[in-house]
Amino acid sequence: MEIPSLLVQKAVDEIAQLPGIGRRSALRLVLHLLRQPTDFSERLSGAIATLRQQIRYCTTCHNISDDDQCTICANPLRERNVICVVEDIRDVMAIEATGQFKGLYHVLGGKIAPMDGIGPQQLTIDALVARVQEENINEIIFALSSTMEGDTTNYYIYKKLSALRLRFSAISRGIGIGDELEYADELTLGRSIRQRIPFEMSMKS
Amino acid sequence: MEIPSLLVQKAVDEIAQLPGIGRRSALRLVLHLLRQPTDFSERLSGAIATLRQQIRYCTTCHNISDDDQCTICANPLRERNVICVVEDIRDVMAIEATGQFKGLYHVLGGKIAPMDGIGPQQLTIDALVARVQEENINEIIFALSSTMEGDTTNYYIYKKLSALRLRFSAISRGIGIGDELEYADELTLGRSIRQRIPFEMSMKS
Repeated sequence: MEIPSLLVQKAVDEIAQLPGIGRRSALRLVLHLLRQPTDFSERLSGAIATLRQQIRYCTTCHNISDDDQCTICANPLRERNVICVVEDIRDVMAIEATGQFKGLYHVLGGKIAPMDGIGPQQLTIDALVARVQEENINEIIFALSSTMEGDTTNYYIYKKLSALRLRFSAISRGIGIGDELEYADELTLGRSIRQRIPFEMSMKS
Repeated sequence: MEIPSLLVQKAVDEIAQLPGIGRRSALRLVLHLLRQPTDFSERLSGAIATLRQQIRYCTTCHNISDDDQCTICANPLRERNVICVVEDIRDVMAIEATGQFKGLYHVLGGKIAPMDGIGPQQLTIDALVARVQEENINEIIFALSSTMEGDTTNYYIYKKLSALRLRFSAISRGIGIGDELEYADELTLGRSIRQRIPFEMSMKS
Protein backbone atom coordinates (compact mmCIF):
# COMPACT_ATOMS: atom_id res chain seq x y z
CA MET A 1 0.00 0.00 0.00
CA GLU A 2 1.31 3.39 -1.01
CA ILE A 3 1.22 6.25 1.50
CA PRO A 4 0.15 9.49 -0.22
CA SER A 5 2.47 11.74 1.82
CA LEU A 6 6.25 11.83 2.05
CA LEU A 7 6.06 13.21 5.60
CA VAL A 8 3.91 10.30 6.75
CA GLN A 9 6.05 7.88 4.76
CA LYS A 10 9.21 9.12 6.47
CA ALA A 11 7.72 8.93 9.95
CA VAL A 12 6.43 5.41 9.25
CA ASP A 13 9.87 4.36 7.93
CA GLU A 14 11.61 5.58 11.09
CA ILE A 15 9.07 4.17 13.55
CA ALA A 16 8.99 0.81 11.75
CA GLN A 17 12.73 0.43 12.45
CA LEU A 18 11.97 0.01 16.15
CA PRO A 19 11.94 -3.62 17.28
CA GLY A 20 8.52 -5.26 17.34
CA ILE A 21 6.81 -2.52 15.33
CA GLY A 22 5.86 -3.32 11.75
CA ARG A 23 4.88 -0.85 9.04
CA ARG A 24 1.17 -1.29 9.72
CA SER A 25 1.56 -0.55 13.43
CA ALA A 26 3.84 2.36 12.57
CA LEU A 27 1.14 3.87 10.34
CA ARG A 28 -1.42 3.39 13.10
CA LEU A 29 0.89 5.25 15.52
CA VAL A 30 1.43 8.06 13.00
CA LEU A 31 -2.32 8.51 12.51
CA HIS A 32 -2.71 8.55 16.29
CA LEU A 33 -0.06 11.30 16.54
CA LEU A 34 -1.90 13.31 13.89
CA ARG A 35 -5.13 13.09 15.87
CA GLN A 36 -3.46 14.31 19.08
CA PRO A 37 -2.66 17.97 19.86
CA THR A 38 0.68 19.19 18.48
CA ASP A 39 2.32 19.36 21.90
CA PHE A 40 1.98 15.58 22.30
CA SER A 41 4.26 15.00 19.30
CA GLU A 42 6.57 17.75 20.55
CA ARG A 43 6.90 16.15 23.98
CA LEU A 44 7.46 12.71 22.44
CA SER A 45 10.09 13.83 19.93
CA GLY A 46 11.72 16.04 22.56
CA ALA A 47 11.97 13.18 25.07
CA ILE A 48 13.54 10.89 22.45
CA ALA A 49 16.07 13.49 21.29
CA THR A 50 17.01 14.57 24.84
CA LEU A 51 17.29 10.98 26.00
CA ARG A 52 19.96 10.07 23.51
CA GLN A 53 21.86 13.37 23.76
CA GLN A 54 21.98 13.62 27.54
CA ILE A 55 22.00 10.03 28.75
CA ARG A 56 24.81 9.23 31.18
CA TYR A 57 26.09 6.04 32.70
CA CYS A 58 27.27 5.42 36.26
CA THR A 59 31.07 5.54 36.14
CA THR A 60 31.23 2.68 38.64
CA CYS A 61 28.65 0.09 37.56
CA HIS A 62 27.64 1.44 34.08
CA ASN A 63 23.99 1.49 35.03
CA ILE A 64 21.97 4.24 33.36
CA SER A 65 22.11 7.27 35.62
CA ASP A 66 21.47 11.02 35.67
CA ASP A 67 24.68 11.59 37.68
CA ASP A 68 28.27 10.35 37.74
CA GLN A 69 27.19 7.72 40.23
CA CYS A 70 23.86 5.91 40.06
CA THR A 71 21.59 5.99 43.10
CA ILE A 72 22.61 2.43 44.02
CA CYS A 73 26.38 3.01 43.93
CA ALA A 74 25.91 6.30 45.76
CA ASN A 75 23.85 4.70 48.53
CA PRO A 76 26.06 4.28 51.66
CA LEU A 77 23.75 1.53 52.97
CA ARG A 78 24.54 -0.94 50.16
CA GLU A 79 26.99 -3.79 50.82
CA ARG A 80 30.08 -2.79 48.84
CA ASN A 81 31.82 -6.18 48.62
CA VAL A 82 29.24 -8.07 46.53
CA ILE A 83 28.75 -7.39 42.82
CA CYS A 84 25.84 -8.79 40.83
CA VAL A 85 26.70 -8.97 37.10
CA VAL A 86 23.71 -8.28 34.83
CA GLU A 87 23.06 -7.58 31.17
CA ASP A 88 21.12 -4.34 31.27
CA ILE A 89 19.15 -1.86 33.34
CA ARG A 90 15.96 -3.97 33.18
CA ASP A 91 17.71 -6.73 35.10
CA VAL A 92 18.79 -4.20 37.75
CA MET A 93 15.20 -3.01 38.02
CA ALA A 94 13.84 -6.56 38.25
CA ILE A 95 16.26 -7.55 41.03
CA GLU A 96 15.76 -4.25 42.88
CA ALA A 97 12.00 -4.85 42.81
CA THR A 98 12.49 -8.05 44.83
CA GLY A 99 14.14 -6.13 47.69
CA GLN A 100 16.32 -9.23 48.28
CA PHE A 101 19.71 -7.86 47.23
CA LYS A 102 21.68 -5.23 49.11
CA GLY A 103 24.97 -5.31 47.20
CA LEU A 104 26.14 -3.46 44.07
CA TYR A 105 25.66 -4.22 40.35
CA HIS A 106 27.77 -4.28 37.25
CA VAL A 107 25.89 -3.67 33.99
CA LEU A 108 27.63 -5.35 31.03
CA GLY A 109 25.52 -3.72 28.34
CA GLY A 110 24.93 -7.04 26.58
CA LYS A 111 26.29 -10.55 26.24
CA ILE A 112 29.21 -11.89 24.22
CA ALA A 113 27.63 -12.83 20.88
CA PRO A 114 30.18 -13.26 18.07
CA MET A 115 27.38 -13.85 15.54
CA ASP A 116 26.09 -10.33 16.25
CA GLY A 117 29.60 -8.85 16.31
CA ILE A 118 29.57 -8.38 20.08
CA GLY A 119 32.89 -9.33 21.65
CA PRO A 120 34.22 -8.69 25.17
CA GLN A 121 35.51 -5.27 24.05
CA GLN A 122 31.97 -4.05 23.33
CA LEU A 123 30.95 -4.84 26.90
CA THR A 124 32.11 -3.35 30.21
CA ILE A 125 34.10 -6.43 31.20
CA ASP A 126 37.48 -4.64 31.46
CA ALA A 127 35.90 -2.10 33.77
CA LEU A 128 34.53 -4.94 35.92
CA VAL A 129 37.98 -6.55 36.18
CA ALA A 130 39.56 -3.21 37.13
CA ARG A 131 36.82 -2.62 39.68
CA VAL A 132 37.32 -6.02 41.32
CA GLN A 133 41.10 -5.48 41.43
CA GLU A 134 40.85 -2.01 42.95
CA GLU A 135 38.05 -2.50 45.42
CA ASN A 136 37.47 -4.92 48.23
CA ILE A 137 35.10 -7.34 46.51
CA ASN A 138 34.60 -10.87 47.82
CA GLU A 139 31.64 -12.20 45.81
CA ILE A 140 30.56 -12.05 42.18
CA ILE A 141 26.99 -13.14 41.44
CA PHE A 142 26.24 -14.01 37.81
CA ALA A 143 22.68 -13.09 36.83
CA LEU A 144 22.78 -13.20 33.02
CA SER A 145 20.08 -15.12 31.21
CA SER A 146 20.99 -18.79 30.84
CA THR A 147 21.43 -18.92 27.09
CA MET A 148 24.56 -19.98 25.25
CA GLU A 149 25.63 -16.32 25.04
CA GLY A 150 24.94 -15.81 28.74
CA ASP A 151 26.92 -18.91 29.71
CA THR A 152 29.81 -17.90 27.43
CA THR A 153 29.92 -14.43 28.97
CA ASN A 154 29.79 -15.80 32.52
CA TYR A 155 32.65 -18.17 31.75
CA TYR A 156 34.76 -15.48 30.07
CA ILE A 157 34.42 -13.23 33.13
CA TYR A 158 35.05 -16.15 35.49
CA LYS A 159 38.31 -16.95 33.67
CA LYS A 160 39.39 -13.31 33.84
CA LEU A 161 38.79 -13.15 37.59
CA SER A 162 39.52 -16.68 38.76
CA ALA A 163 43.08 -15.81 39.86
CA LEU A 164 41.64 -13.45 42.45
CA ARG A 165 40.34 -14.66 45.80
CA LEU A 166 36.61 -14.36 45.14
CA ARG A 167 33.48 -16.37 45.68
CA PHE A 168 31.56 -16.89 42.44
CA SER A 169 27.85 -17.69 42.46
CA ALA A 170 24.95 -17.72 40.02
CA ILE A 171 21.29 -17.01 40.70
CA SER A 172 19.36 -20.26 41.16
CA ARG A 173 17.31 -21.57 38.26
CA GLY A 174 14.22 -23.69 38.58
CA ILE A 175 10.53 -23.61 38.07
CA GLY A 176 8.74 -20.54 39.33
CA ILE A 177 7.04 -20.39 42.71
CA GLY A 178 3.41 -21.43 42.15
CA ASP A 179 4.12 -23.02 38.74
CA GLU A 180 2.73 -26.47 38.00
CA LEU A 181 5.36 -29.14 37.38
CA GLU A 182 3.52 -30.54 34.37
CA TYR A 183 3.78 -27.25 32.47
CA ALA A 184 7.47 -26.60 33.17
CA ASP A 185 9.93 -27.21 30.34
CA GLU A 186 12.16 -30.24 30.75
CA LEU A 187 15.43 -28.31 30.89
CA THR A 188 14.24 -26.11 33.74
CA LEU A 189 12.61 -28.91 35.69
CA GLY A 190 15.69 -31.08 35.16
CA ARG A 191 17.87 -28.39 36.61
CA SER A 192 15.48 -27.90 39.52
CA ILE A 193 15.96 -31.57 40.38
CA ARG A 194 19.73 -31.62 39.96
CA GLN A 195 20.26 -28.41 41.90
CA ARG A 196 17.87 -29.30 44.70
CA ILE A 197 18.49 -27.62 48.04
CA PRO A 198 18.07 -28.84 51.64
CA PHE A 199 14.39 -28.95 52.56
CA GLU A 200 14.88 -26.73 55.62
CA MET A 201 16.35 -24.04 53.37
CA SER A 202 13.40 -24.25 50.98
CA MET A 203 11.02 -23.42 53.87
CA LYS A 204 12.64 -20.00 54.40
CA SER A 205 11.39 -16.87 52.63
CA MET B 1 9.81 -1.18 39.16
CA GLU B 2 11.59 2.12 39.53
CA ILE B 3 13.66 3.50 36.67
CA PRO B 4 16.92 5.00 37.99
CA SER B 5 17.04 7.89 35.50
CA LEU B 6 14.65 10.79 35.00
CA LEU B 7 15.61 11.01 31.31
CA VAL B 8 14.69 7.39 30.72
CA GLN B 9 11.60 7.76 32.90
CA LYS B 10 10.39 10.69 30.83
CA ALA B 11 10.99 8.93 27.51
CA VAL B 12 9.19 5.83 28.79
CA ASP B 13 6.25 7.96 30.00
CA GLU B 14 5.86 9.59 26.59
CA ILE B 15 6.26 6.42 24.53
CA ALA B 16 3.86 4.49 26.78
CA GLN B 17 1.11 6.97 25.90
CA LEU B 18 1.05 5.61 22.35
CA PRO B 19 -1.76 3.11 21.74
CA GLY B 20 -0.79 -0.53 22.17
CA ILE B 21 2.54 0.20 23.87
CA GLY B 22 2.77 -0.54 27.58
CA ARG B 23 5.45 0.67 29.99
CA ARG B 24 7.46 -2.52 29.63
CA SER B 25 7.55 -2.28 25.82
CA ALA B 26 8.33 1.44 26.11
CA LEU B 27 11.37 0.66 28.28
CA ARG B 28 12.48 -1.97 25.79
CA LEU B 29 12.25 0.61 22.98
CA VAL B 30 14.20 3.16 25.05
CA LEU B 31 17.00 0.66 25.71
CA HIS B 32 17.04 -0.13 22.00
CA LEU B 33 17.40 3.58 21.19
CA LEU B 34 20.29 3.86 23.64
CA ARG B 35 22.11 0.99 21.92
CA GLN B 36 21.74 2.57 18.48
CA PRO B 37 23.95 5.39 17.13
CA THR B 38 22.81 8.91 18.10
CA ASP B 39 21.65 9.77 14.59
CA PHE B 40 18.99 7.06 14.74
CA SER B 41 17.24 8.84 17.63
CA GLU B 42 17.75 12.14 15.86
CA ARG B 43 16.10 10.90 12.68
CA LEU B 44 13.22 9.36 14.64
CA SER B 45 12.53 12.42 16.80
CA GLY B 46 12.98 14.69 13.78
CA ALA B 47 10.49 12.70 11.69
CA ILE B 48 7.89 12.82 14.50
CA ALA B 49 8.32 16.55 15.10
CA THR B 50 8.30 17.45 11.40
CA LEU B 51 5.30 15.22 10.73
CA ARG B 52 3.06 17.03 13.15
CA GLN B 53 4.34 20.52 12.32
CA GLN B 54 4.20 20.25 8.56
CA ILE B 55 1.36 17.84 7.86
CA ARG B 56 -1.21 19.17 5.41
CA TYR B 57 -4.57 17.94 4.27
CA CYS B 58 -6.04 18.01 0.77
CA THR B 59 -8.36 21.02 0.64
CA THR B 60 -10.85 19.01 -1.43
CA CYS B 61 -11.09 15.57 0.19
CA HIS B 62 -9.18 16.11 3.48
CA ASN B 63 -6.87 13.22 2.77
CA ILE B 64 -3.34 13.61 4.14
CA SER B 65 -1.26 15.28 1.47
CA ASP B 66 2.00 17.12 0.91
CA ASP B 67 0.26 19.67 -1.35
CA ASP B 68 -3.00 21.63 -1.46
CA GLN B 69 -4.50 18.82 -3.46
CA CYS B 70 -3.79 15.16 -2.85
CA THR B 71 -2.51 13.04 -5.72
CA ILE B 72 -5.96 11.49 -6.17
CA CYS B 73 -7.91 14.77 -6.39
CA ALA B 74 -5.22 16.21 -8.67
CA ASN B 75 -5.37 13.23 -11.03
CA PRO B 76 -7.35 14.20 -14.19
CA LEU B 77 -8.07 10.54 -14.95
CA ARG B 78 -10.26 10.00 -11.87
CA GLU B 79 -14.04 10.02 -12.21
CA ARG B 80 -15.08 13.30 -10.61
CA ASN B 81 -18.76 12.57 -9.98
CA VAL B 82 -18.41 9.70 -7.49
CA ILE B 83 -17.28 10.28 -3.91
CA CYS B 84 -16.34 7.44 -1.58
CA VAL B 85 -16.74 8.48 2.07
CA VAL B 86 -14.13 6.95 4.37
CA GLU B 87 -12.91 7.38 7.91
CA ASP B 88 -9.19 7.94 7.47
CA ILE B 89 -6.17 7.68 5.19
CA ARG B 90 -5.73 3.96 5.87
CA ASP B 91 -9.10 3.30 4.26
CA VAL B 92 -8.08 5.33 1.20
CA MET B 93 -4.87 3.31 0.97
CA ALA B 94 -6.75 0.03 1.36
CA ILE B 95 -9.29 0.86 -1.37
CA GLU B 96 -6.59 2.27 -3.69
CA ALA B 97 -4.66 -0.96 -3.34
CA THR B 98 -7.60 -2.91 -4.83
CA GLY B 99 -7.44 -0.86 -8.06
CA GLN B 100 -11.26 -1.19 -8.25
CA PHE B 101 -12.24 2.42 -7.64
CA LYS B 102 -11.61 5.31 -10.01
CA GLY B 103 -13.62 8.05 -8.29
CA LEU B 104 -12.71 10.53 -5.56
CA TYR B 105 -12.71 10.23 -1.78
CA HIS B 106 -13.89 12.21 1.19
CA VAL B 107 -11.97 11.58 4.41
CA LEU B 108 -14.15 12.27 7.44
CA GLY B 109 -11.35 12.05 10.01
CA GLY B 110 -13.37 9.73 12.24
CA LYS B 111 -16.90 8.62 12.99
CA ILE B 112 -19.66 10.25 15.01
CA ALA B 113 -19.08 8.91 18.52
CA PRO B 114 -20.85 10.92 21.21
CA MET B 115 -19.28 8.75 23.94
CA ASP B 116 -15.83 9.93 22.81
CA GLY B 117 -17.01 13.52 22.36
CA ILE B 118 -16.88 13.30 18.56
CA GLY B 119 -19.87 15.02 16.98
CA PRO B 120 -20.50 15.97 13.32
CA GLN B 121 -18.64 19.25 13.89
CA GLN B 122 -15.37 17.41 14.61
CA LEU B 123 -15.58 15.68 11.25
CA THR B 124 -15.43 17.06 7.70
CA ILE B 125 -19.14 16.50 7.05
CA ASP B 126 -19.95 20.17 6.35
CA ALA B 127 -17.16 20.25 3.79
CA LEU B 128 -18.61 17.14 2.16
CA VAL B 129 -22.08 18.73 1.96
CA ALA B 130 -20.61 21.90 0.43
CA ARG B 131 -18.61 19.83 -2.02
CA VAL B 132 -21.64 17.87 -3.17
CA GLN B 133 -23.67 21.08 -3.56
CA GLU B 134 -20.98 22.86 -5.55
CA GLU B 135 -19.73 20.08 -7.75
CA ASN B 136 -21.41 17.75 -10.15
CA ILE B 137 -21.62 14.65 -7.94
CA ASN B 138 -24.07 11.89 -8.69
CA GLU B 139 -23.07 9.10 -6.35
CA ILE B 140 -21.98 8.83 -2.73
CA ILE B 141 -20.44 5.53 -1.66
CA PHE B 142 -20.34 4.88 2.09
CA ALA B 143 -17.26 2.90 3.11
CA LEU B 144 -17.12 3.39 6.88
CA SER B 145 -16.66 0.33 9.03
CA SER B 146 -20.01 -1.24 9.85
CA THR B 147 -20.14 -0.48 13.55
CA MET B 148 -22.82 1.47 15.34
CA GLU B 149 -20.74 4.64 14.98
CA GLY B 150 -20.18 3.95 11.30
CA ASP B 151 -23.89 3.40 10.65
CA THR B 152 -24.80 6.51 12.65
CA THR B 153 -22.35 8.57 10.62
CA ASN B 154 -23.59 7.14 7.32
CA TYR B 155 -27.17 7.90 8.27
CA TYR B 156 -26.36 11.43 9.43
CA ILE B 157 -24.67 12.18 6.11
CA TYR B 158 -27.48 10.51 4.17
CA LYS B 159 -30.04 12.73 5.91
CA LYS B 160 -27.98 15.84 5.17
CA LEU B 161 -27.76 14.99 1.48
CA SER B 162 -30.99 13.14 0.79
CA ALA B 163 -32.72 16.25 -0.62
CA LEU B 164 -30.21 16.33 -3.45
CA ARG B 165 -30.54 14.10 -6.51
CA LEU B 166 -27.86 11.57 -5.67
CA ARG B 167 -27.43 7.86 -5.72
CA PHE B 168 -26.35 6.52 -2.34
CA SER B 169 -24.57 3.22 -2.02
CA ALA B 170 -22.60 1.31 0.55
CA ILE B 171 -19.77 -1.09 -0.11
CA SER B 172 -21.00 -4.65 0.03
CA ARG B 173 -19.98 -6.74 2.96
CA GLY B 174 -18.16 -9.85 1.99
CA ILE B 175 -15.96 -8.99 4.93
CA GLY B 176 -17.10 -9.70 8.45
CA ILE B 177 -19.15 -7.16 10.41
CA GLY B 178 -16.86 -5.26 12.74
CA ASP B 179 -13.71 -6.01 10.72
CA GLU B 180 -11.52 -3.02 9.88
CA LEU B 181 -11.09 -2.17 6.18
CA GLU B 182 -7.33 -2.10 6.37
CA TYR B 183 -7.15 -5.76 7.39
CA ALA B 184 -9.38 -7.08 4.62
CA ASP B 185 -7.74 -8.92 1.74
CA GLU B 186 -7.69 -7.02 -1.53
CA LEU B 187 -9.94 -9.43 -3.45
CA THR B 188 -12.74 -9.22 -0.90
CA LEU B 189 -12.49 -5.48 -0.50
CA GLY B 190 -12.33 -5.02 -4.29
CA ARG B 191 -15.53 -7.03 -4.67
CA SER B 192 -17.16 -4.96 -1.94
CA ILE B 193 -16.57 -1.85 -4.01
CA ARG B 194 -17.75 -3.35 -7.28
CA GLN B 195 -20.88 -4.92 -5.74
CA ARG B 196 -22.05 -1.92 -3.77
CA ILE B 197 -25.77 -1.92 -3.03
CA PRO B 198 -28.34 0.90 -2.68
CA PHE B 199 -27.98 2.62 0.68
CA GLU B 200 -31.60 1.92 1.69
CA MET B 201 -30.94 -1.79 1.24
CA SER B 202 -27.76 -1.56 3.28
CA MET B 203 -29.76 -0.28 6.27
CA LYS B 204 -31.81 -3.50 6.39
CA SER B 205 -28.89 -5.33 7.97
